[in-house]
Amino acid sequence: MAATAADGGFRVLDRNSLIDYIRATPALSSQLGSKLEGLSVKEVGDGNLNYVYIIVSSSGSLVLKQAIPYIRCIGESWPMTKERAYFEALALKEHGRLCPTHVPEVYHFDRPLSLIAMRYLKPPHIILRKGLIAGIVYPLLAEHMSEYMARTLFFTSLLYHSTLEHRREVAEYCGNVELCRLTEQVVFSDPYKVSQYNHWTSPYLDHNAEAVREDDILKLEVAGLKSMFCERTQALVHGDLHTGSVMVTTESTQVIDPEFAFYGPMGFDIGAFLGNLILAFFSQDGHADQGNDRSAYKQWILKTIGDVWNLFQKKFITLWNENKDGNGEAYLKDIYKKPELWNLVQEKYIKDLFHDSLGFGAAKMIRRIVGVAHVEDFESIPDARRRATCERRALEFAKSLLKERRRFDKIEQVVSAIQEIPT
Amino acid sequence: MAATAADGGFRVLDRNSLIDYIRATPALSSQLGSKLEGLSVKEVGDGNLNYVYIIVSSSGSLVLKQAIPYIRCIGESWPMTKERAYFEALALKEHGRLCPTHVPEVYHFDRPLSLIAMRYLKPPHIILRKGLIAGIVYPLLAEHMSEYMARTLFFTSLLYHSTLEHRREVAEYCGNVELCRLTEQVVFSDPYKVSQYNHWTSPYLDHNAEAVREDDILKLEVAGLKSMFCERTQALVHGDLHTGSVMVTTESTQVIDPEFAFYGPMGFDIGAFLGNLILAFFSQDGHADQGNDRSAYKQWILKTIGDVWNLFQKKFITLWNENKDGNGEAYLKDIYKKPELWNLVQEKYIKDLFHDSLGFGAAKMIRRIVGVAHVEDFESIPDARRRATCERRALEFAKSLLKERRRFDKIEQVVSAIQEIPT
Ligand SMILES: Nc1ncnc2c1ncn2[C@@H]1O[C@H](COP(=O)(O)OP(=O)(O)O)[C@@H](O)[C@H]1O
Ligand SMILES: Nc1ncnc2c1ncn2[C@@H]1O[C@H](COP(=O)(O)OP(=O)(O)O)[C@@H](O)[C@H]1O
Ligand SMILES: [Mg+2]
Ligand SMILES: [Mg+2]
Ligand SMILES: [Mg+2]
Ligand SMILES: [Mg+2]
Ligand SMILES: [Mg+2]
Repeated sequence: MAATAADGGFRVLDRNSLIDYIRATPALSSQLGSKLEGLSVKEVGDGNLNYVYIIVSSSGSLVLKQAIPYIRCIGESWPMTKERAYFEALALKEHGRLCPTHVPEVYHFDRPLSLIAMRYLKPPHIILRKGLIAGIVYPLLAEHMSEYMARTLFFTSLLYHSTLEHRREVAEYCGNVELCRLTEQVVFSDPYKVSQYNHWTSPYLDHNAEAVREDDILKLEVAGLKSMFCERTQALVHGDLHTGSVMVTTESTQVIDPEFAFYGPMGFDIGAFLGNLILAFFSQDGHADQGNDRSAYKQWILKTIGDVWNLFQKKFITLWNENKDGNGEAYLKDIYKKPELWNLVQEKYIKDLFHDSLGFGAAKMIRRIVGVAHVEDFESIPDARRRATCERRALEFAKSLLKERRRFDKIEQVVSAIQEIPT
Repeated sequence: MAATAADGGFRVLDRNSLIDYIRATPALSSQLGSKLEGLSVKEVGDGNLNYVYIIVSSSGSLVLKQAIPYIRCIGESWPMTKERAYFEALALKEHGRLCPTHVPEVYHFDRPLSLIAMRYLKPPHIILRKGLIAGIVYPLLAEHMSEYMARTLFFTSLLYHSTLEHRREVAEYCGNVELCRLTEQVVFSDPYKVSQYNHWTSPYLDHNAEAVREDDILKLEVAGLKSMFCERTQALVHGDLHTGSVMVTTESTQVIDPEFAFYGPMGFDIGAFLGNLILAFFSQDGHADQGNDRSAYKQWILKTIGDVWNLFQKKFITLWNENKDGNGEAYLKDIYKKPELWNLVQEKYIKDLFHDSLGFGAAKMIRRIVGVAHVEDFESIPDARRRATCERRALEFAKSLLKERRRFDKIEQVVSAIQEIPT
């Protein structure tokens, strides 16, 4: 496809034009060393939206990700701004600055081409979701993810930002509205009405899907979460922090794919991650076999759910205490310095964030069972009846979590509730 | 002051340069008719921030308002962007489009000069606050102000906007951050700590001011409101909707001075107006004299407080119902169409808005008694002891309202609570 004036120089890159582009771009060729002959170029985009290429030379490697002006897995019938790559690059750089250990480095960004070059997360890195399906234990996952979330959310909130910095950043990310709208539709709207895009394991879940559409209290709660998503500029959130946006080894945890980044409620990220861990839990019975009943693995997932939240809140509070003399304007030290009050304020903040996270987590679970985009955790269970049983349990848990989340004070209570869902 | 390149052509206008400017600007001279000799030019800025000129010719009139790069009543030591005029003009035009009956028409805006030309609100229009001090009954005030608030808030919220429109507008008004910061400081921070700007009727209120600074629960609640102010982009709010921003006759109600406009919580406007009516109520005993004990007037104020809220919610819900087939994306008709659910959702929305309004209203009251900028309602009571008694009652009411607001379901309960404050 040739560049035209109308699309500002955009063209979909292919194998050959990619190589030409790399040759012409020192920031890229320098990553790959002097010998650019015999480059290996592999398209690996297993995601829903974009093209991702792994480029390996004899002395280096990188990943190129290109956004195209529609949703890849649906086609040109569902247009989607390729400017999402701009916000992805911006967020990768910002989150990378705040938490370099868990975010791949950005080497280069080309806005007209919507093209990001970043560090290649080499094997044995795999997508966390695939690791969870395979039953692999990641002993550092909770530590790493809580670190990533605590740092990226704290440092982009008014606990650290002045309101001057904050409103400037909020304004910038308002530009990522089309991606926000996609979330609004697929997470907060479509599952609660009849929509051409919705699907579920039919006929087994027909009644359950209908019950979601008929549940007034659920819909009232979802409306509150949707408003919070649309109106609350609490921090720069990743915006799509499911287990498919994390690449892992047993030692390393890397967060990719923040193309949905915007200033939104912190609980949206925390909930996305926790909710997807809970989905992984409920899918395990569908992956159990004679050799492995998955019960130990289920315990590890539950422990990880608990650890993610508990470590998150500990790290978040630590950052808050360490930065109490900084620019953050939400709780001025001069007003809140008395230790009892300082604690009171932090407890209130964390409690509200906990309930937000549970609410968003539940909403993210529901949409993965009766909405447009499902998760491999369940999709990879071949027997539909067995899959439906797993999904139904996850769905019932998510519904009650969404409605009753304010009853929970601690993550341990949530973990207990997960285990109490009847089989 | 001559224009320089550095200030982009800005100069403070005086009498002569004003007249030259009018002559050179058709949008202005056309308002004033052909004969521009013998123009009357009167500076009337009684506000805290800007210069306001009334220009009258033999056949027409207008008002010119110029922002200067500092806070007028404090001086060059407190700089404040003159870009506030840009946001004032933008909001005047937007609110004027939505509610032309209650917003003066903008004739002209000059961004480099930070100069707004608008309709002159002729005598007998006076500032509402002065009318309330004088004990004048405005029989249409509640009707008009509820109309203004319902329309401006509804039509700039996600009940009417698509999220596309909404985020574009939010981003634009993020530019008015300096004015938001002024509010953050003087409303949500300074009153709760020792600040050089704070003052109160001393020595009578010394203990009361100290009690505000020592009240942990109050400060916890204020933190929640401040976060909402900084983070929640619910609608385009006026941002300074006290009784000094409203000009009235017994027939006409006009809202001026939206230089603090931004996307914030609706309750901030509603609360500002209600809170200032409550201040007016508590000041009445200080204005009572042998000829007029003000008791009938106090009843009228209380009735007006009730009517403002009740009419507001009625009009707001009517607009919502009338526009349910529109672009508003917060509550999609397909999801919420069942009448019981539609009602449930609206009741929840209004209840939350009520509590927000009471909270912000209380915060606005407190800051007018122990913060930097006081209100003429109290300041015009010459006897300090008598003034302090009025202020103390208002302050005690505001504190309990801020802390206990969620106990109130109806405005009538608030009105009763006002009357129960011991004298
Ligand atoms: N930096 C990287 N290193 C290695 N593999 C990557 C990298 N970025 C993406 N991938 C691979 O490409 C897939 C799609 O990338 P992703 O950023 O999630 O795209 P999409 O936005 O289309 O979901 C990932 O699931 C992963 O397998
Ligand atoms: N359109 C108008 N018509 C008549 N008087 C006006 C008009 N606008 C402002 N004024 C007068 O000027 C005063 C200050 O205007 P205002 O917009 O409140 O300025 P500030 O931002 O400095 O508070 C008002 O209190 C009112 O008396
Ligand atoms: Mg992805
Ligand atoms: Mg993606
Ligand atoms: Mg004013
Ligand atoms: Mg605009
Ligand atoms: Mg003003």
